[in-house]
Amino acid sequence: MADDGPAMRLLLVNCNTSTTVSDRLQAVATSVAAPTTSITVATPEFGAERVVGFYDSFVSAAASLQVMSRFRGQCDGVVMVGFGEHGREGARQLMDVPVVDITEAGMMAACLLGTDVGILATSEQAVGPIRESVRAMGLSSRLHGVRVVPGASPAEPEAFVGGAEALLAEGADVVLLAGAEMLAVQEALTRQCCVPVVDPLTTAVKWCESLVHLSLSTSKHRDYRWEHGKVLSLE
Amino acid sequence: MADDGPAMRLLLVNCNTSTTVSDRLQAVATSVAAPTTSITVATPEFGAERVVGFYDSFVSAAASLQVMSRFRGQCDGVVMVGFGEHGREGARQLMDVPVVDITEAGMMAACLLGTDVGILATSEQAVGPIRESVRAMGLSSRLHGVRVVPGASPAEPEAFVGGAEALLAEGADVVLLAGAEMLAVQEALTRQCCVPVVDPLTTAVKWCESLVHLSLSTSKHRDYRWEHGKVLSLE
Amino acid sequence: MADDGPAMRLLLVNCNTSTTVSDRLQAVATSVAAPTTSITVATPEFGAERVVGFYDSFVSAAASLQVMSRFRGQCDGVVMVGFGEHGREGARQLMDVPVVDITEAGMMAACLLGTDVGILATSEQAVGPIRESVRAMGLSSRLHGVRVVPGASPAEPEAFVGGAEALLAEGADVVLLAGAEMLAVQEALTRQCCVPVVDPLTTAVKWCESLVHLSLSTSKHRDYRWEHGKVLSLE
Amino acid sequence: MADDGPAMRLLLVNCNTSTTVSDRLQAVATSVAAPTTSITVATPEFGAERVVGFYDSFVSAAASLQVMSRFRGQCDGVVMVGFGEHGREGARQLMDVPVVDITEAGMMAACLLGTDVGILATSEQAVGPIRESVRAMGLSSRLHGVRVVPGASPAEPEAFVGGAEALLAEGADVVLLAGAEMLAVQEALTRQCCVPVVDPLTTAVKWCESLVHLSLSTSKHRDYRWEHGKVLSLE
Amino acid sequence: MADDGPAMRLLLVNCNTSTTVSDRLQAVATSVAAPTTSITVATPEFGAERVVGFYDSFVSAAASLQVMSRFRGQCDGVVMVGFGEHGREGARQLMDVPVVDITEAGMMAACLLGTDVGILATSEQAVGPIRESVRAMGLSSRLHGVRVVPGASPAEPEAFVGGAEALLAEGADVVLLAGAEMLAVQEALTRQCCVPVVDPLTTAVKWCESLVHLSLSTSKHRDYRWEHGKVLSLE
Amino acid sequence: MADDGPAMRLLLVNCNTSTTVSDRLQAVATSVAAPTTSITVATPEFGAERVVGFYDSFVSAAASLQVMSRFRGQCDGVVMVGFGEHGREGARQLMDVPVVDITEAGMMAACLLGTDVGILATSEQAVGPIRESVRAMGLSSRLHGVRVVPGASPAEPEAFVGGAEALLAEGADVVLLAGAEMLAVQEALTRQCCVPVVDPLTTAVKWCESLVHLSLSTSKHRDYRWEHGKVLSLE
Repeated sequence: MADDGPAMRLLLVNCNTSTTVSDRLQAVATSVAAPTTSITVATPEFGAERVVGFYDSFVSAAASLQVMSRFRGQCDGVVMVGFGEHGREGARQLMDVPVVDITEAGMMAACLLGTDVGILATSEQAVGPIRESVRAMGLSSRLHGVRVVPGASPAEPEAFVGGAEALLAEGADVVLLAGAEMLAVQEALTRQCCVPVVDPLTTAVKWCESLVHLSLSTSKHRDYRWEHGKVLSLE
Repeated sequence: MADDGPAMRLLLVNCNTSTTVSDRLQAVATSVAAPTTSITVATPEFGAERVVGFYDSFVSAAASLQVMSRFRGQCDGVVMVGFGEHGREGARQLMDVPVVDITEAGMMAACLLGTDVGILATSEQAVGPIRESVRAMGLSSRLHGVRVVPGASPAEPEAFVGGAEALLAEGADVVLLAGAEMLAVQEALTRQCCVPVVDPLTTAVKWCESLVHLSLSTSKHRDYRWEHGKVLSLE
Repeated sequence: MADDGPAMRLLLVNCNTSTTVSDRLQAVATSVAAPTTSITVATPEFGAERVVGFYDSFVSAAASLQVMSRFRGQCDGVVMVGFGEHGREGARQLMDVPVVDITEAGMMAACLLGTDVGILATSEQAVGPIRESVRAMGLSSRLHGVRVVPGASPAEPEAFVGGAEALLAEGADVVLLAGAEMLAVQEALTRQCCVPVVDPLTTAVKWCESLVHLSLSTSKHRDYRWEHGKVLSLE
Repeated sequence: MADDGPAMRLLLVNCNTSTTVSDRLQAVATSVAAPTTSITVATPEFGAERVVGFYDSFVSAAASLQVMSRFRGQCDGVVMVGFGEHGREGARQLMDVPVVDITEAGMMAACLLGTDVGILATSEQAVGPIRESVRAMGLSSRLHGVRVVPGASPAEPEAFVGGAEALLAEGADVVLLAGAEMLAVQEALTRQCCVPVVDPLTTAVKWCESLVHLSLSTSKHRDYRWEHGKVLSLE
Repeated sequence: MADDGPAMRLLLVNCNTSTTVSDRLQAVATSVAAPTTSITVATPEFGAERVVGFYDSFVSAAASLQVMSRFRGQCDGVVMVGFGEHGREGARQLMDVPVVDITEAGMMAACLLGTDVGILATSEQAVGPIRESVRAMGLSSRLHGVRVVPGASPAEPEAFVGGAEALLAEGADVVLLAGAEMLAVQEALTRQCCVPVVDPLTTAVKWCESLVHLSLSTSKHRDYRWEHGKVLSLE
Repeated sequence: MADDGPAMRLLLVNCNTSTTVSDRLQAVATSVAAPTTSITVATPEFGAERVVGFYDSFVSAAASLQVMSRFRGQCDGVVMVGFGEHGREGARQLMDVPVVDITEAGMMAACLLGTDVGILATSEQAVGPIRESVRAMGLSSRLHGVRVVPGASPAEPEAFVGGAEALLAEGADVVLLAGAEMLAVQEALTRQCCVPVVDPLTTAVKWCESLVHLSLSTSKHRDYRWEHGKVLSLE
């Protein structure tokens, strides 16, 4: 059984306050994780039911850090489940385990599969935070563009086909889905478009498992050092 | 009296929870503002007494947005008083008035005075957020570097002289002070170093006054649109 | 009266040889300046009546520096009134006071108001110098693009509406007007487009006043040192 | 058994002609792979015994592609085992499965753990190809620098400690080892330096397993399309 | 006769295995070379008859280096005749004379003639390698874009007119032809379009002659040092 | 005689007002030019005897354009002889023939010979204009740095050896000399340092001859169009 890799506890931190979403995230993450990996999903106690745009994102970052702080010393890796949302650098300082933001994992996987990444989002106001997140990770030169399918819902995957085709026509050669609940969309687009379509949540789960498996964790040499030892109360 | 420019209400948002700091900020801002400008300082209700590093910064961003939201419709301009701290894009979405982050104002003023900006900070953990803030505003190519004078306090301005001289020796030709309470340091360094030394708070106050005077405000065309109209409760 | 800020003498340097233009610049600058600020406009003695394109711009730079040199020691700040034109680094070396180029002030103000700056110009041949000017100040990543409304005149502000709307449709979220005599255009566009529209001359006047007010001046540490003390004769 | 993830066949392509090295690579890869993953190592039939520098690297690229072509249709994923070596884009065109270059996997993992990646190499002539490889993947802004420990051998891991410490002192906060046989060095450095040290081979194996597990493969939309269907003979 | 510049022996290295192409390259190169320059064309012994795309390009790089190695010590300069193809850094290490890649010479000449270079190619799969080659030489900011005229043949130069006009309409102001056999296309486009059209082969021949004339050769200080002295056998 | 390439008239435009310098430039240029090339040197009528720094450079640009305008229609190519000086874009608009700035030719030649260009200058105040010139041509990523040998004179070439060695020790692998009268320095450094040392004037002469030979001239499509047909009087 040791052959399966180490038993590990992954913490998924939802960026939205909806526990219904958290339940679905847990199901998806569990479906791709190793059998020896246990998944816990943390739900912020304040913030937006569905985070969209800069204001929500900053509130969500603090709420995510607050709920995450309860799991210090009690998990082996953290996946931050907000596509294009803020806070990953704070999490790296707060926690002693590797932290993977789904935006990072999604972009990196897409860069291994194609040359020009096209991101498909569902809201105009998500575009700014997404571009900022990609710029902060240093991969702007690989981002072909972000295209919005306004009002599209993951519950109706077909609605995304036109957007994906437009990204490809404009010059992208790999599609990255901007959201945590996009697995059904990935499956539909993969059937209909002849390019790889990356679901960021499942990628992040595997990426994080890999880091834990390899005993790699966040650098505490400088920016992410946790020296004053004080988790802030938000009350 | 119209000659003095319009009467205006500026809101300074402290990033720290210390009201003592807020009082000092008010005094400094008032000393450079026009006589027709009234200054109010808002103090966050949670977060760090003294924000240092990524974790504190993200918590502070949410706390700053929360306290700022009480002033919607009641001020003419906002100055965010956290050097290298997060949140300005969220403030631009939340508020209907111009928002100036002291990091932006400081960098821009420095870029008008020299070619290579050297930033002088007081903590190693401030370096990461500062570099990130400068990158997000697009001015990384003008940033020569950030130098830390560990443990230096604005109360002892002489402690900064060596750091400023080191920045100049390394290639910077203008110095920007990384903090809101650096006016005394600016005065001391200006006496002893033969380069301009920029205090970001006073610059931001004048910059913000200028935008209000010219009736310029934040674009609500896309990223900063406030469409759902819901200020989030953080309780 | 000290409350109004220091009495100061700003020198505006027109890039064109037209004194009619200089008169209008003086009127506009005076309308936004503090009552304690006196405005002088210098007009080059040679060069183009209306500077357009690289050749004119380089001739104008020398002519602007020549006329400016007569005011050494006799002004407290310089505003260079040529959008996208050359010479600001030379002025910074020649003069002992802060120098603000209206292209810089316009771009910086626009970057405080939106994320992607769209510039509206009136001539194809202005595009090259404008792009070069923005690149030299390090803000290319914030420039969405330059759009030309061929033959449009500030005397007919309505002619610019279509161009501004096109910039917004293409992805800009703030408009910067490429010219010194654009205040009427700003007013018209502000009425009709729902985004901030930046007039660079008025912004530069307030920016320069702010630097003087804060006793900030050009670095003489390296590039801008004036060591041989010889103003060149152009005859 | 399905719980362990899919059974998969990974092809490791050595860049050197040494089968002794290939045997060691197989052992290391097997030690971190899932029990359901089978590892095959392909050894080039011509080229350098130990690839160092641009000339060797280009010869090795062709040799790697030649030997790889025999495995078309017979593997589920490819790991290219040459740190800083050329050829990955050719492999992506030739093969129908995901291709992970150990330089990419190493850089990406390091970027998840720290902000400034320091690479530790054993030869001056490796520096050029490594910098080029990182530039081609778009991550130059995250590369702090490449430091050489001349003549150091992975068989004597202690020889790398000084180099790693120098990288950290210069500003890196995570170390990436430039070579495929660096696992012992990783273990030694991890014990002695307080930062994460990334071994690129083991990371690439886990990364590639993850892509196969998620059914993600190379885009064939444009650059990597294989349309003429002709594997070139190199004789 | 010494006045004509030094007698010199240039080696042109075809990237394709076609000797018919080599013969035509020799004729074109001779037509622009000085009378004191002798031209030898080397043809690879394996690889693609017509190199297109990444896979072909990497195989061609090794084949080009192999054939080139026979001319060590027997030529005064090398021109690599593959537009957008790999291998120039390897050639610089292998040879003791200056090496000019036609992609480099073409881009540099175009940058002296206009501001935004538009490249005209004949295959979609050439685009990736061309962009990569331009990025590696550091001139991406001068590349406006690569446009493909699918299936166009240099034998029918008129087929390229529409593509060139499209490049100009999109914003390019100088056209660079992506291929070694484009002289007839250059002549046709020059007649019909009012912009400079650069043929990379003829430019590279003159560039290389110039370097030899000036006694300038490749740096052997670091990346291009040839220290192990072993030309690899590819058999 | 046609074999020698076309007879052509090159105009060298000195940036300094010294005719003694002009005479020396003519001798050096003639020594490397083809026998069928005639060299004329134009000397500005105003400006600095020896251009150093931004102010001089802008005055020199206008003076160079003025003297150059007398040669419209009377030369086949222009070489601008001011290392790091302004004005080349104006010359491209003014003249109907190819224009080569020695900074461009020097940088491009250096980029063909090494990977990291180190520039050796003789004055601190030349550094700013040189960096700006390289940035404007898009080659900043290839510039390792500019090193100053204060007060060194080309008349004593040995004074430059230490500077060249320092550049190489810091990471450059090719040296570019920042001045038009550096041929003797090139010869001395070439003897003593084992790297290529580029003299920008002789390179620019050969580069310009090549463009004329190939009938390539400046694009008049957009930025460099000369449409109003008015050479400005500078009196």
